[in-house]
Amino acid sequence: MAGNSFGQLFRITTFGESHGPAIGVIIDGCPSNLEVNENFIQAELDKRKPGQSKITTQRKESDTVQFLSGVFEGKTTGTPLTLLIPNEDQRSKDYAHVKDTYRPSHADYTYQTKYGNRDYRGGGRSSARETAARVAAGAIAKLLLKTAGIEIFAHVSAVGKIEAPNLEHLPVDELVSMRESNIVRCPDPATATQMIDLIDGIRKEGDTVGGKVSCVIRNCPVGLGDPVFDKLHADLGKAMLSINAVHGFEYGSGFAGSEMRGSEHNDIIVPAPSKPGNEPLKTLTNFSGGIQGGISNGMEIFFRVAFKPVATIMQNQATVNTAGEAAEVQGKGRHDPCVVPRAVAIVEAMAALVLADHLLRDKGVRL
Amino acid sequence: MAGNSFGQLFRITTFGESHGPAIGVIIDGCPSNLEVNENFIQAELDKRKPGQSKITTQRKESDTVQFLSGVFEGKTTGTPLTLLIPNEDQRSKDYAHVKDTYRPSHADYTYQTKYGNRDYRGGGRSSARETAARVAAGAIAKLLLKTAGIEIFAHVSAVGKIEAPNLEHLPVDELVSMRESNIVRCPDPATATQMIDLIDGIRKEGDTVGGKVSCVIRNCPVGLGDPVFDKLHADLGKAMLSINAVHGFEYGSGFAGSEMRGSEHNDIIVPAPSKPGNEPLKTLTNFSGGIQGGISNGMEIFFRVAFKPVATIMQNQATVNTAGEAAEVQGKGRHDPCVVPRAVAIVEAMAALVLADHLLRDKGVRL
Amino acid sequence: MAGNSFGQLFRITTFGESHGPAIGVIIDGCPSNLEVNENFIQAELDKRKPGQSKITTQRKESDTVQFLSGVFEGKTTGTPLTLLIPNEDQRSKDYAHVKDTYRPSHADYTYQTKYGNRDYRGGGRSSARETAARVAAGAIAKLLLKTAGIEIFAHVSAVGKIEAPNLEHLPVDELVSMRESNIVRCPDPATATQMIDLIDGIRKEGDTVGGKVSCVIRNCPVGLGDPVFDKLHADLGKAMLSINAVHGFEYGSGFAGSEMRGSEHNDIIVPAPSKPGNEPLKTLTNFSGGIQGGISNGMEIFFRVAFKPVATIMQNQATVNTAGEAAEVQGKGRHDPCVVPRAVAIVEAMAALVLADHLLRDKGVRL
Amino acid sequence: MAGNSFGQLFRITTFGESHGPAIGVIIDGCPSNLEVNENFIQAELDKRKPGQSKITTQRKESDTVQFLSGVFEGKTTGTPLTLLIPNEDQRSKDYAHVKDTYRPSHADYTYQTKYGNRDYRGGGRSSARETAARVAAGAIAKLLLKTAGIEIFAHVSAVGKIEAPNLEHLPVDELVSMRESNIVRCPDPATATQMIDLIDGIRKEGDTVGGKVSCVIRNCPVGLGDPVFDKLHADLGKAMLSINAVHGFEYGSGFAGSEMRGSEHNDIIVPAPSKPGNEPLKTLTNFSGGIQGGISNGMEIFFRVAFKPVATIMQNQATVNTAGEAAEVQGKGRHDPCVVPRAVAIVEAMAALVLADHLLRDKGVRL
Repeated sequence: MAGNSFGQLFRITTFGESHGPAIGVIIDGCPSNLEVNENFIQAELDKRKPGQSKITTQRKESDTVQFLSGVFEGKTTGTPLTLLIPNEDQRSKDYAHVKDTYRPSHADYTYQTKYGNRDYRGGGRSSARETAARVAAGAIAKLLLKTAGIEIFAHVSAVGKIEAPNLEHLPVDELVSMRESNIVRCPDPATATQMIDLIDGIRKEGDTVGGKVSCVIRNCPVGLGDPVFDKLHADLGKAMLSINAVHGFEYGSGFAGSEMRGSEHNDIIVPAPSKPGNEPLKTLTNFSGGIQGGISNGMEIFFRVAFKPVATIMQNQATVNTAGEAAEVQGKGRHDPCVVPRAVAIVEAMAALVLADHLLRDKGVRL
Repeated sequence: MAGNSFGQLFRITTFGESHGPAIGVIIDGCPSNLEVNENFIQAELDKRKPGQSKITTQRKESDTVQFLSGVFEGKTTGTPLTLLIPNEDQRSKDYAHVKDTYRPSHADYTYQTKYGNRDYRGGGRSSARETAARVAAGAIAKLLLKTAGIEIFAHVSAVGKIEAPNLEHLPVDELVSMRESNIVRCPDPATATQMIDLIDGIRKEGDTVGGKVSCVIRNCPVGLGDPVFDKLHADLGKAMLSINAVHGFEYGSGFAGSEMRGSEHNDIIVPAPSKPGNEPLKTLTNFSGGIQGGISNGMEIFFRVAFKPVATIMQNQATVNTAGEAAEVQGKGRHDPCVVPRAVAIVEAMAALVLADHLLRDKGVRL
Repeated sequence: MAGNSFGQLFRITTFGESHGPAIGVIIDGCPSNLEVNENFIQAELDKRKPGQSKITTQRKESDTVQFLSGVFEGKTTGTPLTLLIPNEDQRSKDYAHVKDTYRPSHADYTYQTKYGNRDYRGGGRSSARETAARVAAGAIAKLLLKTAGIEIFAHVSAVGKIEAPNLEHLPVDELVSMRESNIVRCPDPATATQMIDLIDGIRKEGDTVGGKVSCVIRNCPVGLGDPVFDKLHADLGKAMLSINAVHGFEYGSGFAGSEMRGSEHNDIIVPAPSKPGNEPLKTLTNFSGGIQGGISNGMEIFFRVAFKPVATIMQNQATVNTAGEAAEVQGKGRHDPCVVPRAVAIVEAMAALVLADHLLRDKGVRL
Repeated sequence: MAGNSFGQLFRITTFGESHGPAIGVIIDGCPSNLEVNENFIQAELDKRKPGQSKITTQRKESDTVQFLSGVFEGKTTGTPLTLLIPNEDQRSKDYAHVKDTYRPSHADYTYQTKYGNRDYRGGGRSSARETAARVAAGAIAKLLLKTAGIEIFAHVSAVGKIEAPNLEHLPVDELVSMRESNIVRCPDPATATQMIDLIDGIRKEGDTVGGKVSCVIRNCPVGLGDPVFDKLHADLGKAMLSINAVHGFEYGSGFAGSEMRGSEHNDIIVPAPSKPGNEPLKTLTNFSGGIQGGISNGMEIFFRVAFKPVATIMQNQATVNTAGEAAEVQGKGRHDPCVVPRAVAIVEAMAALVLADHLLRDKGVRL
């Protein structure tokens, strides 16, 4: 059974390989009458696209999106939206050396064994290039969420052991501006400089490094998320863990919360008569991360995502070939020394897809 | 849209409230001809059941499972299995005091807002009592996995700040025996004693504490997991995050891996001619946690789950009532001072459900 | 992959075998705050229950429904509803004679081959007894539809070659009253008498006969149904064809419409200023059966369902045993001489389930 | 909730509007290692394409299919297949006259009401042009079914009141050859001539006529179909009813079977020692249409589909405009006088999709 679809009511299906003619996505279930701002969608893709700075892969892709269906006179019609992104800068010959070998910590061996064949060019379907389609779809989801006032902001909160200070009390607009002022997408300028230096140095060594992306969601209405299996944070977790290279997810108090006592961790509720919509409560602390019983409670939702270091390094490595014999894989190709600067757009996109889905799912759950 | 089902081909739907007549589960998609060992299923439930020791809730439930359908002459027939667990020891009057107030860090407010009403008795559907149904279904999944030789072992790896040493090199049988020799379900006896003392002390203070559960999966065949969204670890992550009180999930190198370099983190592949099934490879390290590109690679799968402290404490707390006014919730009721000893059975059950589903999903993916 | 669930948002999963302890259904996705009238649900079941007249099977089942979950203080809570119907009058020994033989035109052989075993007692899961669970779930769906003013009415329109006149211009209340005045559930008294005589005669011969059930749906809002695959009539068709013994489905002009010309068949639209809700149109004819492009247009929806004669007859028949040898199956057991009088309740239930699902699906399809 | 996907394991999602840049389909779940014969796929599309004879619409589309993903070195890889069919001969100005009016028996009014806007050019998404994507996907399904020896053959069995004699005892190859020897796709030459004359005459009158398509499936293994809701014939019925203009579906004895007695209708089982695969049985008659209890029994599967006359006629018709006022729609545009000759390819495609899905679904249902 295939797993190329995500979401129940706002449902996407992505397709395409790294070195095929194009990648793309169908969005089925987007409400009609949504204004489609193509510039916004392209701008989202530009945050993820390769070749944007010295600390990203040098593959050159304009990632120009084409609309094949679902939009008429600038608005969605309620029929499937199809967004196509042609591949422009494939260099398949760069991959001839891995045709018969399994790259360490890549998906070569598992795909080959599962499917009995594989498109080895650029990792085929296992390439993170697929996430461009997610960003395109996530941009549509963001347009839908904007109609409900929901804001999403992700940023690089760690590269290797360098951690950024918490700036999440600032308004989203300001955070975006600070984040986009540097190429590593950390809103704190001093930390950003350190991160960039670290990545650049590691790149020159032919090595890679991991990092973390943090994300906040604001103005989420009370009530999104469905017990018991489709808890909002469970769907956010799956969304994040489905992104290439992600090895961990935590929300609210996260792993640190498991060391706390209930009397510290409980979020005391206080009346909030002035909140819009007359919601009766807010909490003094927010260890719950804006979600209780799997359902949003109106407080800020926040979570953190851990990315392993990119597996492609510019160093030769021992491995095994498809015949099961010892072999060596050469260190070459075009790849990111650290994935998190570009992953910020992907994390936001996947969060937007989860929220858009649950926004629609929440319709009709009560008379 | 409701979220009470989990899995695609091995699919469960749970039902029931904490203080209703019963909870239960339908398993749809279990292959026919599987021998149903009822003693095994009951034994699994016994590991999760309340009242099993001084460090668990004192609610007394025998959690005796009844089979309503799907089994004939001791074997599954391929039709839906229905397992029913009657509730025996409800004390609904214990909850009269929360009928009109929202307990801090519980789901009272979010359920009330989402659904416009709620069964306040024992938390209704948001109660962790629902997980008994998961354990029953997980036991069936384990019976299926046994036919493929797959083993699952979870244990308490941390309570508060007390961390257990890594014993995961031992055989599963031995680990189970060591784990079941104490009431906290940590296989290391010395650490277990410390954990029990900590929980017992906290219980006497009317407080609670969080913890962590670690899990390993052995003998998983190569090829389970479906790109791109239904990666094996993404489905495991969702499964774990859907358990009450879970705030974090990491697999393989996890959060620590995000601080590493690619040259350290890559799992070098070596020939493995002697492995059963003639799989050509194993890896020297296993930072990948047995999963590459979302698909199992035949190495050991392992992950860790963080549980927040239980929200019900034996202390009065400020809160808000359903009219939006300041109120107080009394510290009373029967609850666990620490959830992880009983959660071990739930983590194993959810892992088994994910693997059983992907075992079936892997059929027919190649000619 | 199992197929025991129906519907996407208003989703049911049925379980249970003819001679197991019980049958039942989980309804997941029913909106909260719906008043659950248990008498109404029981009354619906009573229309389907066995033993209700001389022209139905003499198996005695009270079909008393029990609520296991999802209702609190008389209203749905938004959590899964579980309805249980214990089996009371199994006579499994009646089926010893078919343990090793395949009954003609039954599912014995196909179940045995597909699953490798089967519960032969009363047909196990393939028994039409399963449809009692559908009727219980359909009763909940009807309660939901009533809140939207939607009415459903089915009746026996043919038994063998005896066809009833079209009385569908009458109000639903009146039709129900006329239908329930006789045991064959045909609203036209003269035809009903003929039908009863036919069935009774056939029963005495140890034979069975087929028939047809017609159904109308009134006050359906414009807009239900989802292109392109989940057209309203496609889902109605699947629903009906999933009922035991159904061999045909047609809506609107149906098979006869395929002999017509476009200039006759087109439903001319005229203004309808006086209709409630200010819908701008009605059509002069209704060959479209209230559905255009798979979406309801506000006119009456109607369709017809063909049931084959019941396969169990009181005559010995040649067959094959499980060893593949020629054998004979004896004519015995308790069965309906004609299924349509009881099927009326099932057709209404399945129609209600489709409409309830599409009523919820229509939420959130437009901004 | 959108309905543009069909199938569970062999799952397609179609996209595109009549006058957009392209239509297409994603196939997710096709097994890897299937050889993709592009000529075969194009040949299937050619049977459905417009402009192929004097009795079809004169819109000129080459319907040339492009592969965007999922195929590598001539074989499927197990990743999503994307097939794109550019639109070439749109004449959107032909539809300016219906921008503000609702065409009788079209989906204009229902789409406009449901979605709040619509792409009026050529019917937008409601156009039967969408079925070209189904035929492309169905061709892939047929390639899969061929590996299991399953054959599908559909033909025009009626145009208006002209019915073809039953020729279904002939081999499929011969039937195909006879069918493709004439433009109406009826294998009986004499009847074909009458049908062509009828359609041509009706076309000259500016009118249209309905018809019927019959389909047989041979060499289907025993065991396809899933009780209780996803019976093989229920899924076939839904598939057929989802095709534009279909108003009825019957299988096996169909509507006529409802007039029969059980003693006539029961299919007596006899030993069949010589059948391939050692299946123990065949039946003397086949009123069951090859399906018992929703599961294939190894006999020939057959069904019949009723198509209403095309709604677009070359005559002016009274109607209502979007303001709710009386209006007239002019008789113009390019359309089929009778849809069944082209629908043969669509019926085969949808049948192939159902069988491919159930072929995969049957994996893993038993140990």
